[in-house]
Formats: sequence, C-alpha cells, structure tokens
Amino acid sequence: MRILILGGDGYLGWPTALRFSAEGDEVAVVDNFNRRRWVEGAGSDSLTPIADLETRIAAWEEISGVRIPSHIGPIEDGDFLDGVVADFLPDAVIHYGQQASAPYSMISRQTAVETQYANTIGNLNLLFAMRDHVPEAHLVKLGTMGEYGQPNIDIEEGYIEISHKGRSDTLPFPKLPGSLYHCSKVHDSTNIHFACRTWGLRATDLNQGVVYGIETEESARDERLITRFDYDEIFGTVLNRFCLQVVIGHPLTVYGAGTQTRGFLNIRDTLACVELAALNPADAGEFRVYNQFTEQFSVIELAGLVKQAGEHLGYSVEIQHCENPRVEKEQHYYNAVHTKLLDLGLEPTLLGEELVESMIHTIERHKGRVIEASIDPRTRWNPGAPVKL
Amino acid sequence: MRILILGGDGYLGWPTALRFSAEGDEVAVVDNFNRRRWVEGAGSDSLTPIADLETRIAAWEEISGVRIPSHIGPIEDGDFLDGVVADFLPDAVIHYGQQASAPYSMISRQTAVETQYANTIGNLNLLFAMRDHVPEAHLVKLGTMGEYGQPNIDIEEGYIEISHKGRSDTLPFPKLPGSLYHCSKVHDSTNIHFACRTWGLRATDLNQGVVYGIETEESARDERLITRFDYDEIFGTVLNRFCLQVVIGHPLTVYGAGTQTRGFLNIRDTLACVELAALNPADAGEFRVYNQFTEQFSVIELAGLVKQAGEHLGYSVEIQHCENPRVEKEQHYYNAVHTKLLDLGLEPTLLGEELVESMIHTIERHKGRVIEASIDPRTRWNPGAPVKL
Repeated sequence: MRILILGGDGYLGWPTALRFSAEGDEVAVVDNFNRRRWVEGAGSDSLTPIADLETRIAAWEEISGVRIPSHIGPIEDGDFLDGVVADFLPDAVIHYGQQASAPYSMISRQTAVETQYANTIGNLNLLFAMRDHVPEAHLVKLGTMGEYGQPNIDIEEGYIEISHKGRSDTLPFPKLPGSLYHCSKVHDSTNIHFACRTWGLRATDLNQGVVYGIETEESARDERLITRFDYDEIFGTVLNRFCLQVVIGHPLTVYGAGTQTRGFLNIRDTLACVELAALNPADAGEFRVYNQFTEQFSVIELAGLVKQAGEHLGYSVEIQHCENPRVEKEQHYYNAVHTKLLDLGLEPTLLGEELVESMIHTIERHKGRVIEASIDPRTRWNPGAPVKL
Repeated sequence: MRILILGGDGYLGWPTALRFSAEGDEVAVVDNFNRRRWVEGAGSDSLTPIADLETRIAAWEEISGVRIPSHIGPIEDGDFLDGVVADFLPDAVIHYGQQASAPYSMISRQTAVETQYANTIGNLNLLFAMRDHVPEAHLVKLGTMGEYGQPNIDIEEGYIEISHKGRSDTLPFPKLPGSLYHCSKVHDSTNIHFACRTWGLRATDLNQGVVYGIETEESARDERLITRFDYDEIFGTVLNRFCLQVVIGHPLTVYGAGTQTRGFLNIRDTLACVELAALNPADAGEFRVYNQFTEQFSVIELAGLVKQAGEHLGYSVEIQHCENPRVEKEQHYYNAVHTKLLDLGLEPTLLGEELVESMIHTIERHKGRVIEASIDPRTRWNPGAPVKL
C-alpha cells in the first residue's frame, strides 16, 4: 500500500512510518516540525536526543535500504497538502499532523486559536484533497478518548443506539470534550463524518487513550531512529512523566485526588492498531470509530504502580497531590467499550511492573537531558494564581 | 442593558440592533461587511436597496435620537474583538457575525475553509473576550436547526436524556449537520458548551429554523432602515426565493421531491426570540439551547402555499422540480420540540396566505432590481455536472 503519514516526524508518526516501511509499504511523510518548536517554546525538550528528520530518514535507508520521502510544510496550507496528495496518490492517509496537547490549547487565546486552526483547517484541507484526488483512499485519523469526556453512561465506540419517545436511531455518541484541544478533535470528527456521508469517503477515527512508552520494534534498531519522549507539563503524558520523575527523584505529581480514570495504551499498541485499521479499511461512505486503548486506570493507580516499580529498582518515590490545574471531574463513572480493535486481532501489551521498569531503564540512559523546571504544572484551565504544589 | 451585536449590518443583525435600541437598550454593532462582499461576489445583490451602515445609523439617529456606535473589523482578529468587548463592556452579546450560507460553504475548499475559519475562530475569540472582560455577560449565539440534521427520533432542545445499559445521563443531542457551514455551527456549540462548563460563562444557543420575511416594526419606519433580502441560490432562503420567483414569473425551484421538512419562522419572531433570550439570561455556567422556529413545513408544502397566494394575486405560478444539488434525505422523519421560547412568552407570527401576499407586495416594489441569473441552483454538495433544471 501507499501510505501517507501526516505528522510523520512526531512521537507516534515517526515510529508509524518505520513500521509501515518495515512491512514493505511505500511510505511518505509530511511534517512542519511544529511539535519540535512548540516543545522548545515551552522551555522543554524531548528526553530522547532525537535526530533531525533528514538524519532519521538516512539512517532508516542505511538499515532497510528503503528511503522514506518527506514533504515539509503546514497542512493548514491547502494548496501544499493538495499537491502532496495529488503527487503521491496514497491508498491510506494516517493523520497524526495536529497540535495534540490539551494544556497547550489552554494557555491563552493565541494557543487556543492556533490549536483549533491547525487541527480543524488542516483536517478539512485533507478531506478536500482526498475527495479530489483519492476518493477511494482510507483516512485513518487519530482522535482521542478525551472527546467523550466522562458521561454517566458507558462510552460506546463512536455511536449509540438511542430509543426515545417510541422511536430509535443509531447516532453519534454525545461528546463532552475536556479542553479546547479536545474540542478541536470533536470538530474533526464532525467534519470527517460529514465528508463520509456526503462524498462517500471512507474513514476510521481512532479515539486513542493516553499513550505511554518509548521503544517500538523498528525504532530500537538504531539510536538515530529513537522517537521523541516528552515529560513536561504541557506535552508530557502522565505515565511517561511519572517514570521520569522516579529517575530524577522528583515526587510523582498527581493532579487533585488522582481519581480521574482514563484509557491507556502502549506505543507499541498504537502502531498495531493503526496497522490493523489500515489493513481493514472502512467501507466507502463509512465513518468508523474505534476506541483505541487497552486498559483503564485512575491516575492514582498509575502513581502507585510506578512507585512500586521504582522502589523495586531501589529508588525512593514520593507521591505528591498538587492542586488540579484542570477543570475536570475527579469522582466520576467511567467505562468505555473497546472491543472493535480486539476483534480485528489486537493483542494488547498490558501494563505491569516489568514494563514500567523497562521504561525507567530507558529514561536512565538520557537522565542528564532532563529540564526539571518544565515538569511542575503551571497551565490552568481557568486563569488565576499559580498552581499550589 | 448594554447589548453588543456582532454582524450588526446583516439581514437579522441590523433589525435586531434597531429593536434593542428602540427598547431603550444601549446598543453597539460590529461588522466587517463580508456579507455584502460575498453576495456581490456571487453575482447577486440584496433585493432591497440597503443603505450603507453609516447612512442607516444616521437615519436611526434622526428618527430615534439615539446613535448606535459601530466597530468595523473582522472578529477573526482576536485583538480587535477583545478591544471592542473591553471598551463596551456589554451585558449581552448577540452573535450573528458569521458566514451563514450552507451552499457558500460547499462551493470549494477555499469557501469551506473561509466559513469554518470565520465562524469557529471568530466565536472562539468571543469566548475569550467574554471570559477576560465580561465573565457575567450573557452570550446569545445564533445556531441553526440544521445542526441536528434528520435523525429518526424527535429532536429535543439541545440535550437528550439517554438510558443505556442500566445507567442514564442527560447529554448533548447528537448532531448530523448537513453542510460544512452547519458543521461550523456544531463546532461553535461544542466550544461554547465547553466555555460554560469550564469558565462558568452563561450562553444561550438559538438553533434557528429557516427565516423568512423582510419587514420588522422598526425597519418599516423609514426606507433607509430596510434590511437586506437575498434570493439567490447561495444566500437566499427558500420561502423568500419562492415569493420573489412569483413576482418575476420564474417557476418555483423545488430541489428534488421537496419532501424535505424543516422548521421555519418569521423575521419578526427572530427578533422576539432574541429579545426573550436576552431578557431571561442563562445562569452562570449554563449552556442553554432553544430550538427557535414556530412551524414545520416541507418545501413542497411551502411551494403550494406560495403558488396559491400568488395565483390569488393574479400571478401565474409554476412549480419546477429540479435535481437536488444537495446531499440530503428527502424522505425522513422530522419532529423537533420547540416549546422553551413559547414558555418564555413567544407569540408566533404564523405563516399564512395573507403573510405571503404581504411579502409579495414588498418584493413588487423592488422588482426592477432582481438579478435573475443568480437564482437557479448551481452549487452542488458533490462536485459534478451542472444541476439539471
């Protein structure tokens, strides 16, 4: 297959490009390096010393004999993206090319607008490019479980059958997004669903949980292939941050009570899910939604697990509850269905002490690069006084 | 009250400004004249010879003794809008300042992007400006019934109680928007709801049906106060177009079978509803949704009513079914609840032959200005051959 990967220089996009290339697919990547710039602008940096895209591509060519072509530009530029799609004529487009941080979207009006503009308009440009050049191609879009929020009913995979006043229909599952970033992902789902209904496009929306992990099969083959790993308060995700905090002797920062429950998955499973979606495309006109995570945990459960693993390795680990800088429910019902990817054959990499210890070992190798000042929470959902630690 | 009206030069915005001013409220308007430019760009023009905003404002000052200040600029410019809100410190903001045509949003990638950018980013800027300067003010946002689409269940006012697997919750009503314009309104609802939940803003989303009519109490007081009236295939709404077609001897263009059913309301009721919403603000943190229409009709029922009224006035009226340029269900269930505005005291102006005849008489006065070439449908939801007439 010809696979076009938007955001192909990112945390998930780069390992995904390697995976498809390793499987013998013809891969091209698009990126504009915004993630690198945003993290730098936030006073942080990837824990892992990531090579620049040209070096990564050259290393992969050296190892695999295959060159992954790259197209550098913003997908918000519709003419640019249209040209890339028209030239490459992909069978599938894997769309990771978005501003993916909830805190970043909540810093200011400017970052909120930047997030919604980049995400919504970039995705809209993609829908038109696919309609006009590859209407049979399959869009695999990364969504987020955060689109659903925490309703008081079970979360289904994209749709719910509703019986109401003697009639019934299967309709999009109602959304309660938790940040302006999450709102932008809801906007994307709305636009993609419309494009499928109206233009007959085929799309799979992967509503992903919180990803953790660093290594994937291909990226482990050479240091130059390693993917980025963010741990700062803006771009870091919770489990990655906890593991890093163990290594540098920083208390594990739990926001509020830590009883917030979310879906989680290993980066290796992200790649497996995206591959399964691509191998089993949606039908023409179908907007298919999968909930892409493997396990549910509360934040405090994760902190406990990481503390245990860290102590097992000889670290002294403290858990610190700080004021929750987000506006979110801490006590809530949470049960999200996630069977469709399992039905396609996903074999989950479940989280356990061994896996946490292996992450800790990888982090230890790059410990000297940590910028500690970037870790503690500063970005509030409501503007106000500094977050109480 | 201090009322800020975004889109205050438009079809509904200008009469709304007059209404609040006549009621003794302190009114300011914001506009960038995009609607005038868009209609001109589409090769059409308002049937009614509308004065420029300065002339309108001067005429109203002459009549009422009150000057309505205007701020000219795009609300997509966050600094501009922030400055206006910070200076005027409104008690309520009535937000009409959007690209409001479904066909316009479907012409091309460029017009789709323009629509979603103007609407979503403009509205997002407004939410931040209100949060930062007037967090207690009431946002009255014009939404559209077209956000819901045509589900196979009754459409409730914004929310629906869902019982599912032994639990239940009241959640946002699922949306099936019918164009990229309608999608943009869904995006706005998602963002506003988030801002209410997170920042405690108070907002009312008026999911409006298709508006018809020209005259309002205030605009009828002087020719210079008349509002715009669009009848072209892009900016015209169906009943207005039918009435105009009677006058110029053009067949009434019914798209497809005409069995599509929608909610409708008179422009006078739009003003009454907006006033009722403003007089009864939402609570802090509340995102309130009203379905703002007074009657449901199928397109073919409307054509029949207009034909009857036209023939009563001596016109010969033909109904012409043309290929439907839109992708929409023609046979569908449709029953939308709309009791909340009635509960607040709305007394509907119902559609009847007399009202159609009065619209026809107003149109007759401006008959010489009709640009007939702009009427027949050309904008398809799916690109392709010209629409078969």
